[in-house]
Amino acid sequence: SLNRIKASGLKLRFCTNETQATRENFVKKLQGMGFDISVAEVTAPAPAACRLLKERSLRPHLLVHDDLLPEFDEIDKVNPNCVVLGDAAENFTYANLNEAFRVLMGLEKPVLISLGRGRYYKETDGLKLDVGAYMKALEYACDVQAEVVGKPAKAFFESALAELGVPPEQAIMIGDDILNDVGGAQRCGMRALQVRTGKYRPCDENHPQVTPDAYVTNLAEAVDIILQQL
Amino acid sequence: SLNRIKASGLKLRFCTNETQATRENFVKKLQGMGFDISVAEVTAPAPAACRLLKERSLRPHLLVHDDLLPEFDEIDKVNPNCVVLGDAAENFTYANLNEAFRVLMGLEKPVLISLGRGRYYKETDGLKLDVGAYMKALEYACDVQAEVVGKPAKAFFESALAELGVPPEQAIMIGDDILNDVGGAQRCGMRALQVRTGKYRPCDENHPQVTPDAYVTNLAEAVDIILQQL
Repeated sequence: SLNRIKASGLKLRFCTNETQATRENFVKKLQGMGFDISVAEVTAPAPAACRLLKERSLRPHLLVHDDLLPEFDEIDKVNPNCVVLGDAAENFTYANLNEAFRVLMGLEKPVLISLGRGRYYKETDGLKLDVGAYMKALEYACDVQAEVVGKPAKAFFESALAELGVPPEQAIMIGDDILNDVGGAQRCGMRALQVRTGKYRPCDENHPQVTPDAYVTNLAEAVDIILQQL
Repeated sequence: SLNRIKASGLKLRFCTNETQATRENFVKKLQGMGFDISVAEVTAPAPAACRLLKERSLRPHLLVHDDLLPEFDEIDKVNPNCVVLGDAAENFTYANLNEAFRVLMGLEKPVLISLGRGRYYKETDGLKLDVGAYMKALEYACDVQAEVVGKPAKAFFESALAELGVPPEQAIMIGDDILNDVGGAQRCGMRALQVRTGKYRPCDENHPQVTPDAYVTNLAEAVDIILQQL
């Protein structure tokens, strides 16, 4: 399906909320599975956060996964004036959470940047709390609202569109997550297809907030429909 | 001050949100400081939670401080159908939080009971996230609302009053926490004095939700005022 889109001449961008690995490693993994994908085609939360940090002269205290750290190599982290929170997994220790909390409480106006707002995800050894849960803990303790970078944030989709050089009304999102993919893209003015694979659950079809522009069985059907319209 | 209240014949109850120790150890610590206090005079979240668990035939998965565990000795914990969350401190590990989360997600209707909703507290080595922050994380991840046992819950003050055999309009709360002590007691129909010690901050005097019935410099002044009214 991917190769058919690329062959059609349509512009393509991969939007991921992955924050447990650098784009390099994320892409290597997908290449290993046989996908034709390069780092330059990926929009991910960490680089979006880096742009935001630079724009606003923010120096982050990082509470992220070790494997994500290289994405922040170029960023000044001395004397932090904000906290960047990712899916830190095993780094979500009591000590690390308290440390991030103390950095926030030491700031005149605490700034918390969260790489996503996911509630949980499933791994082979069971359900895991995602970054959104820890974001809520820090938001409550510090009485602040986090700025979310990544899906479903409008700025995230806008930056993907800017990288493509395409206005939202000419773009279409294909995703399995009703809120993060479909809802986020639609709020940005894009159309969005919900695939009935991956995170999809039948109850998504009665979602109180989000109605996809169409449902498709899988990515192959999404590509069929899109290519038929050309 | 404590001895003067006791000598006056007034009924007295200590209401604490302490969940890092059993009442036995909490009382021993205060006795060691010279206070005339016994376990029977203390209202604390863990025994309140135990009553609630028994009333509703709930079997808890406990995410609490090791030193609090003896309070739950009598409680059936096999095949849990709810989670009880206390200030678990070092027990707030990534693995333990995921485990509590999985128990909740495995229930048809998740029940989360939280021993307080404090945001943070200060120890000699710095600020620490309190139970309320972890409560918010689990609430968000499971899309449930926790039932809070302990101050400022109305049921908590009502149980202290029942133990005293005193109606709320004849009782007065003395506390340093504007929301948990003063606000909670007032919502229960009691009057409440705010002491200007401990957790008190000058900004409390402009609190948007809570206005104490009076401010006092410290516990001694509170007792002076109360005894003058007799």
